Amino acid sequence: MSKLALTISYLGTHYSGWQVQPNAPSIQQTLGEALDLLFGCKCTVTGCSRTDSGVHAHEFLCVVGFGGEYNHIPPDRVPQAINTILPDDISVLSCEECPDDFHPRYGIRGKEYIYLILNSRIRDPFLSGRACQIPQPLDEGAMNTAAKEFIGYHDFGAFMAAGSKITDTRRTVFDAKVERQGDMLTFTVSADGFLYNMVRIMVGTLIEAGKGKLSPADIRGLLTHPDRANAGATVPPHGLYLNRILKGARENEA
Amino acid sequence: MSKLALTISYLGTHYSGWQVQPNAPSIQQTLGEALDLLFGCKCTVTGCSRTDSGVHAHEFLCVVGFGGEYNHIPPDRVPQAINTILPDDISVLSCEECPDDFHPRYGIRGKEYIYLILNSRIRDPFLSGRACQIPQPLDEGAMNTAAKEFIGYHDFGAFMAAGSKITDTRRTVFDAKVERQGDMLTFTVSADGFLYNMVRIMVGTLIEAGKGKLSPADIRGLLTHPDRANAGATVPPHGLYLNRILKGARENEA
Repeated sequence: MSKLALTISYLGTHYSGWQVQPNAPSIQQTLGEALDLLFGCKCTVTGCSRTDSGVHAHEFLCVVGFGGEYNHIPPDRVPQAINTILPDDISVLSCEECPDDFHPRYGIRGKEYIYLILNSRIRDPFLSGRACQIPQPLDEGAMNTAAKEFIGYHDFGAFMAAGSKITDTRRTVFDAKVERQGDMLTFTVSADGFLYNMVRIMVGTLIEAGKGKLSPADIRGLLTHPDRANAGATVPPHGLYLNRILKGARENEA
Repeated sequence: MSKLALTISYLGTHYSGWQVQPNAPSIQQTLGEALDLLFGCKCTVTGCSRTDSGVHAHEFLCVVGFGGEYNHIPPDRVPQAINTILPDDISVLSCEECPDDFHPRYGIRGKEYIYLILNSRIRDPFLSGRACQIPQPLDEGAMNTAAKEFIGYHDFGAFMAAGSKITDTRRTVFDAKVERQGDMLTFTVSADGFLYNMVRIMVGTLIEAGKGKLSPADIRGLLTHPDRANAGATVPPHGLYLNRILKGARENEA
Protein backbone atom coordinates (compact mmCIF):
# COMPACT_ATOMS: atom_id res chain seq x y z
CA MET A 1 0.00 0.00 0.00
CA SER A 2 1.28 3.43 -0.81
CA LYS A 3 -1.79 5.65 -0.39
CA LEU A 4 -5.03 5.36 1.54
CA ALA A 5 -8.46 6.79 0.74
CA LEU A 6 -10.37 7.68 3.91
CA THR A 7 -14.04 8.53 4.14
CA ILE A 8 -14.59 10.72 7.18
CA SER A 9 -17.53 12.39 8.90
CA TYR A 10 -17.28 15.51 11.02
CA LEU A 11 -19.24 18.08 12.91
CA GLY A 12 -17.65 21.33 11.74
CA THR A 13 -18.80 23.54 14.62
CA HIS A 14 -15.48 23.79 16.40
CA TYR A 15 -13.24 23.97 13.33
CA SER A 16 -12.13 26.70 10.95
CA GLY A 17 -13.01 24.36 8.07
CA TRP A 18 -11.16 21.55 6.31
CA GLN A 19 -8.04 23.43 5.26
CA VAL A 20 -5.01 23.93 7.52
CA GLN A 21 -4.89 27.54 8.73
CA PRO A 22 -2.51 29.32 11.08
CA ASN A 23 -3.91 29.88 14.59
CA ALA A 24 -7.19 28.00 14.04
CA PRO A 25 -8.00 24.31 14.44
CA SER A 26 -8.87 22.64 11.12
CA ILE A 27 -10.11 19.18 10.25
CA GLN A 28 -7.09 18.60 7.99
CA GLN A 29 -4.60 19.41 10.75
CA THR A 30 -6.44 17.45 13.45
CA LEU A 31 -6.72 14.40 11.21
CA GLY A 32 -3.14 14.79 10.01
CA GLU A 33 -1.77 14.83 13.57
CA ALA A 34 -3.77 11.69 14.44
CA LEU A 35 -2.45 9.95 11.31
CA ASP A 36 1.15 10.95 12.13
CA LEU A 37 0.71 9.36 15.55
CA LEU A 38 -0.95 6.19 14.26
CA PHE A 39 1.46 5.55 11.37
CA GLY A 40 4.58 6.88 13.08
CA CYS A 41 5.61 9.16 10.22
CA LYS A 42 4.67 12.50 8.71
CA CYS A 43 1.50 11.99 6.61
CA THR A 44 0.07 14.25 3.94
CA VAL A 45 -3.71 14.59 3.74
CA THR A 46 -5.48 15.86 0.61
CA GLY A 47 -9.22 16.59 0.75
CA CYS A 48 -12.00 16.44 -1.85
CA SER A 49 -13.15 19.95 -0.98
CA ARG A 50 -12.41 22.95 1.19
CA THR A 51 -15.34 23.14 3.53
CA ASP A 52 -15.78 26.48 5.32
CA SER A 53 -15.75 27.14 9.02
CA GLY A 54 -18.85 25.59 10.64
CA VAL A 55 -19.71 23.39 7.62
CA HIS A 56 -20.23 19.68 8.37
CA ALA A 57 -19.59 16.48 6.42
CA HIS A 58 -21.34 13.14 6.39
CA GLU A 59 -18.95 11.53 3.91
CA PHE A 60 -15.86 13.53 3.09
CA LEU A 61 -13.17 11.86 0.99
CA CYS A 62 -9.45 12.40 1.57
CA VAL A 63 -6.24 10.73 0.51
CA VAL A 64 -3.33 10.00 2.84
CA GLY A 65 0.26 9.82 1.64
CA PHE A 66 3.26 8.76 3.72
CA GLY A 67 6.40 10.81 4.06
CA GLY A 68 8.66 7.90 4.99
CA GLU A 69 8.70 4.54 6.74
CA TYR A 70 5.40 3.91 8.47
CA ASN A 71 3.65 1.36 10.70
CA HIS A 72 1.83 -1.13 8.49
CA ILE A 73 -1.81 -1.41 9.60
CA PRO A 74 -4.45 -3.34 7.63
CA PRO A 75 -6.71 -0.69 6.02
CA ASP A 76 -9.90 -2.19 7.51
CA ARG A 77 -8.44 -1.72 11.01
CA VAL A 78 -7.53 1.92 10.47
CA PRO A 79 -10.98 3.45 11.25
CA GLN A 80 -11.30 1.98 14.75
CA ALA A 81 -7.63 2.58 15.53
CA ILE A 82 -7.58 6.21 14.50
CA ASN A 83 -11.00 6.99 16.04
CA THR A 84 -9.50 6.28 19.46
CA ILE A 85 -7.03 9.13 18.79
CA LEU A 86 -9.38 11.61 17.06
CA PRO A 87 -11.73 13.90 19.00
CA ASP A 88 -15.43 12.90 19.19
CA ASP A 89 -16.49 15.33 16.47
CA ILE A 90 -14.42 13.62 13.74
CA SER A 91 -14.80 9.97 12.74
CA VAL A 92 -13.10 7.89 10.07
CA LEU A 93 -15.88 5.75 8.56
CA SER A 94 -13.86 3.63 6.15
CA CYS A 95 -10.38 3.21 4.74
CA GLU A 96 -9.09 1.50 1.63
CA GLU A 97 -5.94 1.44 -0.45
CA CYS A 98 -5.96 3.63 -3.54
CA PRO A 99 -3.75 4.21 -6.59
CA ASP A 100 -0.86 6.63 -6.19
CA ASP A 101 -2.27 8.98 -8.79
CA PHE A 102 -5.80 9.17 -7.34
CA HIS A 103 -6.83 12.72 -6.39
CA PRO A 104 -9.93 13.07 -4.20
CA ARG A 105 -11.00 16.26 -5.97
CA TYR A 106 -10.41 15.34 -9.60
CA GLY A 107 -10.80 11.56 -9.48
CA ILE A 108 -14.52 11.64 -8.66
CA ARG A 109 -17.66 12.27 -10.69
CA GLY A 110 -18.96 14.92 -8.32
CA LYS A 111 -20.28 15.71 -4.84
CA GLU A 112 -23.64 16.01 -3.15
CA TYR A 113 -24.37 18.66 -0.54
CA ILE A 114 -27.42 19.07 1.65
CA TYR A 115 -28.59 22.20 3.45
CA LEU A 116 -30.96 21.98 6.41
CA ILE A 117 -33.51 24.71 7.19
CA LEU A 118 -35.55 24.60 10.38
CA ASN A 119 -38.67 26.41 9.20
CA SER A 120 -40.13 27.32 12.58
CA ARG A 121 -40.52 30.26 14.91
CA ILE A 122 -39.39 27.99 17.74
CA ARG A 123 -35.77 26.94 18.16
CA ASP A 124 -34.80 23.26 18.41
CA PRO A 125 -31.87 22.75 20.83
CA PHE A 126 -30.89 19.54 19.03
CA LEU A 127 -30.40 21.47 15.79
CA SER A 128 -28.35 24.32 17.23
CA GLY A 129 -25.33 24.68 14.92
CA ARG A 130 -26.77 21.98 12.65
CA ALA A 131 -29.58 23.70 10.75
CA CYS A 132 -30.40 27.28 9.78
CA GLN A 133 -33.60 28.55 11.41
CA ILE A 134 -35.98 30.57 9.19
CA PRO A 135 -39.07 31.68 11.14
CA GLN A 136 -41.09 33.00 8.16
CA PRO A 137 -43.37 30.50 6.34
CA LEU A 138 -41.66 28.98 3.28
CA ASP A 139 -43.46 27.32 0.38
CA GLU A 140 -41.40 24.19 -0.23
CA GLY A 141 -43.29 23.46 -3.47
CA ALA A 142 -42.22 26.80 -4.94
CA MET A 143 -38.67 26.21 -3.67
CA ASN A 144 -38.52 22.76 -5.26
CA THR A 145 -39.82 24.05 -8.59
CA ALA A 146 -37.22 26.82 -8.50
CA ALA A 147 -34.48 24.34 -7.55
CA LYS A 148 -35.18 22.29 -10.68
CA GLU A 149 -33.96 25.25 -12.75
CA PHE A 150 -30.42 24.62 -11.45
CA ILE A 151 -30.27 21.18 -13.10
CA GLY A 152 -28.02 21.01 -16.16
CA TYR A 153 -24.88 22.68 -17.51
CA HIS A 154 -25.10 26.37 -16.67
CA ASP A 155 -23.03 29.41 -15.81
CA PHE A 156 -23.37 29.68 -12.03
CA GLY A 157 -21.45 32.97 -11.83
CA ALA A 158 -24.38 34.57 -9.96
CA PHE A 159 -23.97 31.89 -7.29
CA MET A 160 -20.33 32.51 -6.46
CA ALA A 161 -18.96 34.69 -3.65
CA ALA A 162 -17.74 38.06 -4.95
CA GLY A 163 -13.94 38.17 -5.09
CA SER A 164 -13.44 34.53 -6.04
CA LYS A 165 -10.64 34.11 -8.58
CA ILE A 166 -12.30 31.31 -10.57
CA THR A 167 -12.89 32.39 -14.17
CA ASP A 168 -14.80 29.43 -15.62
CA THR A 169 -18.01 29.49 -13.61
CA ARG A 170 -19.82 26.81 -15.63
CA ARG A 171 -20.73 23.62 -13.80
CA THR A 172 -23.12 20.70 -14.36
CA VAL A 173 -25.76 20.22 -11.68
CA PHE A 174 -26.97 16.60 -11.77
CA ASP A 175 -29.92 16.99 -9.42
CA ALA A 176 -31.46 19.58 -7.10
CA LYS A 177 -34.53 19.32 -4.91
CA VAL A 178 -36.24 20.70 -1.81
CA GLU A 179 -38.17 18.36 0.50
CA ARG A 180 -40.13 19.05 3.68
CA GLN A 181 -40.54 16.75 6.69
CA GLY A 182 -42.48 18.62 9.35
CA ASP A 183 -40.58 21.83 10.16
CA MET A 184 -37.44 20.61 8.40
CA LEU A 185 -36.63 21.58 4.83
CA THR A 186 -33.77 19.78 3.10
CA PHE A 187 -32.14 21.12 -0.06
CA THR A 188 -30.12 18.42 -1.84
CA VAL A 189 -27.85 19.30 -4.74
CA SER A 190 -25.30 17.25 -6.64
CA ALA A 191 -22.88 18.58 -9.27
CA ASP A 192 -19.55 17.89 -10.92
CA GLY A 193 -18.12 20.85 -9.05
CA PHE A 194 -19.14 23.77 -6.87
CA LEU A 195 -18.03 27.40 -6.87
CA TYR A 196 -17.13 29.19 -3.65
CA ASN A 197 -20.30 29.58 -1.53
CA MET A 198 -22.40 28.21 -4.43
CA VAL A 199 -24.72 26.04 -2.32
CA ARG A 200 -25.21 28.73 0.33
CA ILE A 201 -26.13 31.35 -2.31
CA MET A 202 -28.44 28.83 -4.04
CA VAL A 203 -30.23 28.33 -0.71
CA GLY A 204 -30.48 32.08 -0.07
CA THR A 205 -32.05 32.40 -3.52
CA LEU A 206 -34.45 29.49 -2.97
CA ILE A 207 -35.58 31.08 0.31
CA GLU A 208 -36.64 34.13 -1.73
CA ALA A 209 -38.59 31.74 -3.98
CA GLY A 210 -40.15 30.16 -0.88
CA LYS A 211 -41.31 33.61 0.26
CA GLY A 212 -42.85 34.26 -3.18
CA LYS A 213 -40.30 36.95 -4.04
CA LEU A 214 -38.52 35.10 -6.86
CA SER A 215 -39.95 32.91 -9.64
CA PRO A 216 -38.43 30.01 -11.60
CA ALA A 217 -38.10 32.49 -14.48
CA ASP A 218 -35.97 34.71 -12.23
CA ILE A 219 -33.64 31.75 -11.56
CA ARG A 220 -33.42 31.10 -15.31
CA GLY A 221 -32.52 34.77 -15.71
CA LEU A 222 -29.71 34.45 -13.14
CA LEU A 223 -28.28 31.51 -15.11
CA THR A 224 -28.39 33.26 -18.48
CA HIS A 225 -27.28 36.70 -17.20
CA PRO A 226 -25.13 35.91 -14.16
CA ASP A 227 -25.12 38.75 -11.64
CA ARG A 228 -24.33 38.01 -8.00
CA ALA A 229 -26.32 41.13 -6.98
CA ASN A 230 -29.57 39.62 -8.24
CA ALA A 231 -29.22 36.30 -6.40
CA GLY A 232 -30.18 35.78 -2.76
CA ALA A 233 -28.08 36.23 0.35
CA THR A 234 -25.38 33.76 1.41
CA VAL A 235 -27.01 31.68 4.16
CA PRO A 236 -24.95 30.71 7.25
CA PRO A 237 -22.50 27.77 7.05
CA HIS A 238 -23.92 25.71 9.92
CA GLY A 239 -26.83 24.28 7.86
CA LEU A 240 -24.47 22.93 5.18
CA TYR A 241 -23.25 19.32 4.92
CA LEU A 242 -21.02 17.67 2.37
CA ASN A 243 -23.33 14.67 2.12
CA ARG A 244 -21.50 12.25 -0.16
CA ILE A 245 -19.06 11.76 -2.97
CA LEU A 246 -20.30 10.61 -6.37
CA LYS A 247 -17.76 8.01 -7.36
CA GLY A 248 -16.78 7.20 -10.91
CA ALA A 249 -14.96 8.94 -13.72
CA ARG A 250 -15.58 12.63 -14.36
CA GLU A 251 -17.68 13.28 -17.45
CA ASN A 252 -16.67 15.72 -20.12
CA GLU A 253 -18.44 18.96 -19.27
CA ALA A 254 -18.49 20.53 -22.70
CA MET B 1 -53.31 33.94 34.71
CA SER B 2 -51.69 32.68 37.87
CA LYS B 3 -49.59 29.74 36.69
CA LEU B 4 -48.07 28.73 33.38
CA ALA B 5 -47.37 25.26 32.00
CA LEU B 6 -44.28 25.23 29.77
CA THR B 7 -43.18 22.45 27.46
CA ILE B 8 -39.44 22.65 26.99
CA SER B 9 -36.78 20.77 25.06
CA TYR B 10 -33.14 20.57 26.05
CA LEU B 11 -29.83 18.98 25.26
CA GLY B 12 -28.63 17.86 28.68
CA THR B 13 -24.92 17.54 27.84
CA HIS B 14 -23.75 20.65 29.66
CA TYR B 15 -26.09 20.41 32.68
CA SER B 16 -26.07 18.52 35.95
CA GLY B 17 -29.67 17.51 35.23
CA TRP B 18 -33.03 19.20 35.77
CA GLN B 19 -32.82 19.83 39.49
CA VAL B 20 -31.11 22.86 41.04
CA GLN B 21 -27.79 21.83 42.59
CA PRO B 22 -25.08 23.86 44.32
CA ASN B 23 -22.02 24.55 42.16
CA ALA B 24 -23.39 22.94 38.98
CA PRO B 25 -25.52 24.41 36.21
CA SER B 26 -28.99 22.83 36.05
CA ILE B 27 -31.86 23.21 33.60
CA GLN B 28 -34.19 24.32 36.42
CA GLN B 29 -31.88 27.12 37.53
CA THR B 30 -31.05 28.30 34.00
CA LEU B 31 -34.74 28.38 33.06
CA GLY B 32 -35.68 30.00 36.39
CA GLU B 33 -33.20 32.84 35.93
CA ALA B 34 -34.50 33.51 32.40
CA LEU B 35 -38.09 33.55 33.70
CA ASP B 36 -37.14 35.95 36.53
CA LEU B 37 -35.68 38.29 33.93
CA LEU B 38 -38.62 38.02 31.54
CA PHE B 39 -41.38 38.41 34.12
CA GLY B 40 -39.53 40.80 36.43
CA CYS B 41 -40.17 38.81 39.60
CA LYS B 42 -38.91 35.70 41.35
CA CYS B 43 -40.48 32.67 39.64
CA THR B 44 -40.76 29.11 40.94
CA VAL B 45 -40.32 26.27 38.45
CA THR B 46 -41.59 22.74 39.17
CA GLY B 47 -40.65 19.93 36.78
CA CYS B 48 -42.38 16.70 35.76
CA SER B 49 -39.25 14.66 36.49
CA ARG B 50 -35.69 14.87 37.75
CA THR B 51 -33.60 14.06 34.75
CA ASP B 52 -29.99 13.09 35.52
CA SER B 53 -26.84 14.80 34.35
CA GLY B 54 -26.42 14.33 30.60
CA VAL B 55 -30.03 13.18 30.01
CA HIS B 56 -31.96 15.06 27.31
CA ALA B 57 -35.62 16.01 26.83
CA HIS B 58 -37.72 16.45 23.73
CA GLU B 59 -40.87 17.51 25.62
CA PHE B 60 -40.38 18.19 29.32
CA LEU B 61 -43.31 19.70 31.24
CA CYS B 62 -42.86 22.26 33.99
CA VAL B 63 -45.08 24.71 35.85
CA VAL B 64 -44.14 28.30 36.60
CA GLY B 65 -45.48 30.18 39.63
CA PHE B 66 -44.97 33.87 40.34
CA GLY B 67 -43.62 35.19 43.63
CA GLY B 68 -45.13 38.66 43.30
CA GLU B 69 -46.15 41.30 40.76
CA TYR B 70 -45.00 40.31 37.30
CA ASN B 71 -44.94 41.57 33.71
CA HIS B 72 -48.06 40.34 31.95
CA ILE B 73 -47.10 38.62 28.69
CA PRO B 74 -49.61 36.72 26.53
CA PRO B 75 -48.75 33.00 26.99
CA ASP B 76 -48.40 32.37 23.26
CA ARG B 77 -45.68 35.05 23.12
CA VAL B 78 -43.67 33.57 25.99
CA PRO B 79 -41.74 30.92 23.97
CA GLN B 80 -40.17 33.31 21.47
CA ALA B 81 -39.54 35.95 24.15
CA ILE B 82 -37.81 33.63 26.59
CA ASN B 83 -35.86 31.77 23.90
CA THR B 84 -33.98 35.00 23.18
CA ILE B 85 -32.77 34.90 26.81
CA LEU B 86 -32.12 31.15 27.17
CA PRO B 87 -28.93 29.47 25.90
CA ASP B 88 -29.14 27.56 22.59
CA ASP B 89 -29.36 24.15 24.27
CA ILE B 90 -32.70 24.91 25.98
CA SER B 91 -35.87 25.92 24.13
CA VAL B 92 -39.40 26.64 25.35
CA LEU B 93 -41.68 24.99 22.77
CA SER B 94 -45.08 26.09 24.09
CA CYS B 95 -46.72 27.88 27.00
CA GLU B 96 -50.26 27.92 28.29
CA GLU B 97 -52.12 28.94 31.41
CA CYS B 98 -52.87 26.15 33.85
CA PRO B 99 -54.90 25.72 37.06
CA ASP B 100 -53.24 26.72 40.32
CA ASP B 101 -53.41 23.18 41.65
CA PHE B 102 -51.89 21.49 38.59
CA HIS B 103 -48.70 19.56 39.38
CA PRO B 104 -46.56 18.47 36.39
CA ARG B 105 -45.59 15.23 38.08
CA TYR B 106 -48.93 14.09 39.52
CA GLY B 107 -51.36 15.75 37.11
CA ILE B 108 -50.35 13.63 34.13
CA ARG B 109 -51.09 10.07 33.04
CA GLY B 110 -47.46 9.17 32.54
CA LYS B 111 -44.27 9.79 30.59
CA GLU B 112 -42.51 8.28 27.61
CA TYR B 113 -38.75 7.90 27.43
CA ILE B 114 -36.59 6.82 24.53
CA TYR B 115 -33.05 5.47 24.64
CA LEU B 116 -30.80 5.57 21.57
CA ILE B 117 -28.16 2.93 20.88
CA LEU B 118 -25.72 3.35 18.00
CA ASN B 119 -25.05 -0.31 17.21
CA SER B 120 -21.84 0.10 15.24
CA ARG B 121 -18.11 -0.35 15.57
CA ILE B 122 -17.71 3.07 13.98
CA ARG B 123 -18.46 6.28 15.86
CA ASP B 124 -20.87 8.89 14.46
CA PRO B 125 -19.72 12.44 15.31
CA PHE B 126 -23.32 13.71 15.02
CA LEU B 127 -24.40 11.33 17.80
CA SER B 128 -21.59 12.13 20.23
CA GLY B 129 -23.32 12.71 23.59
CA ARG B 130 -26.67 11.83 22.01
CA ALA B 131 -26.63 8.03 21.70
CA CYS B 132 -24.81 5.20 23.46
CA GLN B 133 -22.48 3.29 21.15
CA ILE B 134 -22.49 -0.53 21.44
CA PRO B 135 -20.03 -2.12 18.99
CA GLN B 136 -21.10 -5.77 19.48
CA PRO B 137 -23.91 -7.08 17.22
CA LEU B 138 -27.32 -6.83 18.91
CA ASP B 139 -30.40 -8.84 17.89
CA GLU B 140 -33.17 -6.23 17.94
CA GLY B 141 -35.85 -8.92 17.50
CA ALA B 142 -34.74 -10.63 20.73
CA MET B 143 -34.56 -7.24 22.46
CA ASN B 144 -38.07 -6.30 21.33
CA THR B 145 -39.50 -9.65 22.48
CA ALA B 146 -37.80 -9.19 25.86
CA ALA B 147 -39.06 -5.58 26.10
CA LYS B 148 -42.66 -6.77 25.75
CA GLU B 149 -42.27 -8.51 29.14
CA PHE B 150 -42.09 -5.08 30.81
CA ILE B 151 -45.64 -4.19 29.73
CA GLY B 152 -48.20 -4.26 32.56
CA TYR B 153 -48.34 -3.67 36.31
CA HIS B 154 -45.20 -5.18 37.81
CA ASP B 155 -42.71 -4.79 40.62
CA PHE B 156 -39.74 -3.08 38.96
CA GLY B 157 -37.55 -3.29 42.07
CA ALA B 158 -34.82 -5.06 40.04
CA PHE B 159 -34.73 -2.01 37.75
CA MET B 160 -34.04 0.62 40.41
CA ALA B 161 -30.63 1.99 41.42
CA ALA B 162 -29.40 0.48 44.68
CA GLY B 163 -29.80 2.91 47.56
CA SER B 164 -33.01 4.54 46.32
CA LYS B 165 -35.43 5.28 49.19
CA ILE B 166 -38.61 4.42 47.28
CA THR B 167 -40.45 1.52 48.95
CA ASP B 168 -43.34 0.88 46.54
CA THR B 169 -41.53 -0.23 43.41
CA ARG B 170 -44.65 -1.23 41.47
CA ARG B 171 -45.41 0.69 38.29
CA THR B 172 -47.56 0.22 35.19
CA VAL B 173 -45.67 0.12 31.88
CA PHE B 174 -48.09 1.01 29.07
CA ASP B 175 -45.83 0.09 26.17
CA ALA B 176 -42.24 -0.95 25.51
CA LYS B 177 -40.52 -1.72 22.22
CA VAL B 178 -37.17 -1.86 20.44
CA GLU B 179 -36.89 -0.78 16.80
CA ARG B 180 -33.94 -0.69 14.42
CA GLN B 181 -33.27 1.78 11.64
CA GLY B 182 -29.89 1.00 10.11
CA ASP B 183 -27.31 1.15 12.91
CA MET B 184 -29.69 2.94 15.28
CA LEU B 185 -31.70 1.05 17.88
CA THR B 186 -34.45 2.93 19.69
CA PHE B 187 -36.00 1.67 22.93
CA THR B 188 -39.32 3.39 23.65
CA VAL B 189 -41.06 2.92 26.98
CA SER B 190 -44.08 4.64 28.52
CA ALA B 191 -45.30 4.19 32.10
CA ASP B 192 -47.29 5.91 34.82
CA GLY B 193 -44.05 6.44 36.69
CA PHE B 194 -40.39 5.51 36.66
CA LEU B 195 -38.03 4.48 39.44
CA TYR B 196 -34.55 5.96 39.74
CA ASN B 197 -32.43 4.77 36.76
CA MET B 198 -35.27 2.44 35.71
CA VAL B 199 -34.99 3.07 31.94
CA ARG B 200 -31.20 2.86 31.97
CA ILE B 201 -31.26 -0.50 33.82
CA MET B 202 -34.01 -1.77 31.50
CA VAL B 203 -31.75 -0.93 28.53
CA GLY B 204 -28.73 -2.59 30.15
CA THR B 205 -30.87 -5.69 30.60
CA LEU B 206 -32.21 -5.59 27.03
CA ILE B 207 -28.64 -5.34 25.72
CA GLU B 208 -27.96 -8.69 27.46
CA ALA B 209 -31.04 -10.06 25.67
CA GLY B 210 -29.70 -8.66 22.39
CA LYS B 211 -26.42 -10.52 22.95
CA GLY B 212 -28.33 -13.75 23.63
CA LYS B 213 -27.38 -13.81 27.31
CA LEU B 214 -30.87 -13.22 28.77
CA SER B 215 -34.24 -14.65 27.66
CA PRO B 216 -37.77 -13.25 28.00
CA ALA B 217 -38.23 -15.81 30.79
CA ASP B 218 -35.28 -14.22 32.63
CA ILE B 219 -37.03 -10.82 32.42
CA ARG B 220 -40.22 -12.40 33.79
CA GLY B 221 -38.13 -13.82 36.63
CA LEU B 222 -36.72 -10.35 37.41
CA LEU B 223 -40.27 -8.99 37.65
CA THR B 224 -41.52 -11.77 39.95
CA HIS B 225 -38.36 -12.00 42.09
CA PRO B 226 -36.88 -8.50 41.96
CA ASP B 227 -33.14 -8.52 42.48
CA ARG B 228 -31.03 -5.65 41.14
CA ALA B 229 -28.01 -7.96 40.98
CA ASN B 230 -29.65 -10.12 38.30
CA ALA B 231 -30.59 -7.24 35.97
CA GLY B 232 -28.21 -5.66 33.48
CA ALA B 233 -25.82 -2.75 33.96
CA THR B 234 -26.97 0.87 34.13
CA VAL B 235 -26.24 2.28 30.68
CA PRO B 236 -24.83 5.84 30.36
CA PRO B 237 -27.20 8.82 30.62
CA HIS B 238 -26.39 10.44 27.26
CA GLY B 239 -28.59 8.04 25.23
CA LEU B 240 -31.67 8.85 27.31
CA TYR B 241 -34.44 11.30 26.35
CA LEU B 242 -37.63 12.24 28.12
CA ASN B 243 -39.61 12.01 24.90
CA ARG B 244 -43.09 13.21 25.85
CA ILE B 245 -45.69 13.58 28.55
CA LEU B 246 -48.84 11.44 28.41
CA LYS B 247 -51.56 13.91 29.25
CA GLY B 248 -54.80 13.04 31.00
CA ALA B 249 -55.84 11.92 34.46
CA ARG B 250 -53.74 9.32 36.27
CA GLU B 251 -55.37 5.90 36.38
CA ASN B 252 -55.76 3.98 39.59
CA GLU B 253 -52.84 1.58 39.69
CA ALA B 254 -54.34 -1.07 41.99
